[in-house]
Amino acid sequence: MNEITSISNNTVKDIVKLHQKKYRDEFIIVEGEKSLESAVETGLKIKGIFSCNKDLLEKYKDFETYLINDKIMEKISTTESAPTVLGIIARPKYNLEHFKKFKKIVLLDNIKDAGNLGTIIRTAAAFDIDGILLFGDCTDEYSPKTIRSSAGNIFKIPLTHATLEQLSEFKKSHKMVTTVVNSKNYIRDYNVKEPYIVMFGSEAQGLCKELLSIGDVSYTIPMKDGVESLNLAVSCGIFLYEISKYTG
Amino acid sequence: MNEITSISNNTVKDIVKLHQKKYRDEFIIVEGEKSLESAVETGLKIKGIFSCNKDLLEKYKDFETYLINDKIMEKISTTESAPTVLGIIARPKYNLEHFKKFKKIVLLDNIKDAGNLGTIIRTAAAFDIDGILLFGDCTDEYSPKTIRSSAGNIFKIPLTHATLEQLSEFKKSHKMVTTVVNSKNYIRDYNVKEPYIVMFGSEAQGLCKELLSIGDVSYTIPMKDGVESLNLAVSCGIFLYEISKYTG
Repeated sequence: MNEITSISNNTVKDIVKLHQKKYRDEFIIVEGEKSLESAVETGLKIKGIFSCNKDLLEKYKDFETYLINDKIMEKISTTESAPTVLGIIARPKYNLEHFKKFKKIVLLDNIKDAGNLGTIIRTAAAFDIDGILLFGDCTDEYSPKTIRSSAGNIFKIPLTHATLEQLSEFKKSHKMVTTVVNSKNYIRDYNVKEPYIVMFGSEAQGLCKELLSIGDVSYTIPMKDGVESLNLAVSCGIFLYEISKYTG
Repeated sequence: MNEITSISNNTVKDIVKLHQKKYRDEFIIVEGEKSLESAVETGLKIKGIFSCNKDLLEKYKDFETYLINDKIMEKISTTESAPTVLGIIARPKYNLEHFKKFKKIVLLDNIKDAGNLGTIIRTAAAFDIDGILLFGDCTDEYSPKTIRSSAGNIFKIPLTHATLEQLSEFKKSHKMVTTVVNSKNYIRDYNVKEPYIVMFGSEAQGLCKELLSIGDVSYTIPMKDGVESLNLAVSCGIFLYEISKYTG
């Protein structure tokens, strides 16, 4: 077990850099026991584990551990109330080619809200989705807020980015399902055989033209007149729940 | 149209007080055109409407309007980027007795997260729920963040608080439905006839013992092993979607 007592220590400075997306190419911050345990279970490379609690660090004695003080924890963590433990973990990297074997894929188009993204990842894990694709200009999928909102489930599901060209490749093997507000097909009648990619647009814009144009079939959640739409994470939740029931 | 130019004006000070729950007994802040229009439509008493945009205020000329500057808008609003318009509205007050006539009621137990509460209100409106009851120590249902997260739908649905004793009264007329993680009844088999109250616990604690004890029937959303739970707003979304399909 190492010990850091100075807030101006270089390791501390390096971790604080990871608060910014541009420094998170190789390593990411994982806060809290639940998320950290989930990351450890995946076998991802662990660079270091930091806590003010010696006993807690004992649990992680196979890794490089650092005893720190409250002031340093406050400095390196991103939450309002400091976590009990914080890990620096290799950023997960998944190969898009590998996704071709997946039967159930969720695609998110231009998702900007880190909390919504984490919540959707958590939902996708709950309904046994095989992988998540990100399209366009999305919020960083491994930001501390997204990891937190996923309640640790982000490490249970592969995520990567795809371009329109790459998606066209998938169209040969996968059914492309679009989710919209005005389809005649209600989601309760979902009957798309696997493999498929089900696509969700941003709350403000919906699915972009390019993605709509590669869709094979579209579905809608029926709602009361006068209510324009649902929160994106809620809408994804209902779609994925309903889709998970269909095993045709 | 009135005009306020000084940030130390008493009206400005009075609005800033409304940022705190303890001052919101009589009036609340409504930010943004969408939410404000929704509040205006309900016929709630409007104390004043504030904007830096003269043309926008013209739309509200039947009310007391105030032309203000950017600095004042920044001061009185609660969002990071200032809204185009802000209204001070009488806090909606609903009579619990009136709820006895409602067929479809949602109850939320000890909900603490303002964003989650707003999202659930939005979902309840989408699935035609008649009213929402709050139980225990909940976040303020008319906080700016909850209003925002409801996307203006909060003014379309009655909300009030109920004690255990009051709920016991409802038990005579309404079926009490509990939502839990370990029921043998899966939500897809939902078949509770109206009128009912469907109850949701907090994400951390679930439903409290007292509410579980007055339940008539319980339901669960089936999930993949290893994923402990869904986000509360997502879980409510799936329940309310499924319940809305049952019209037995």
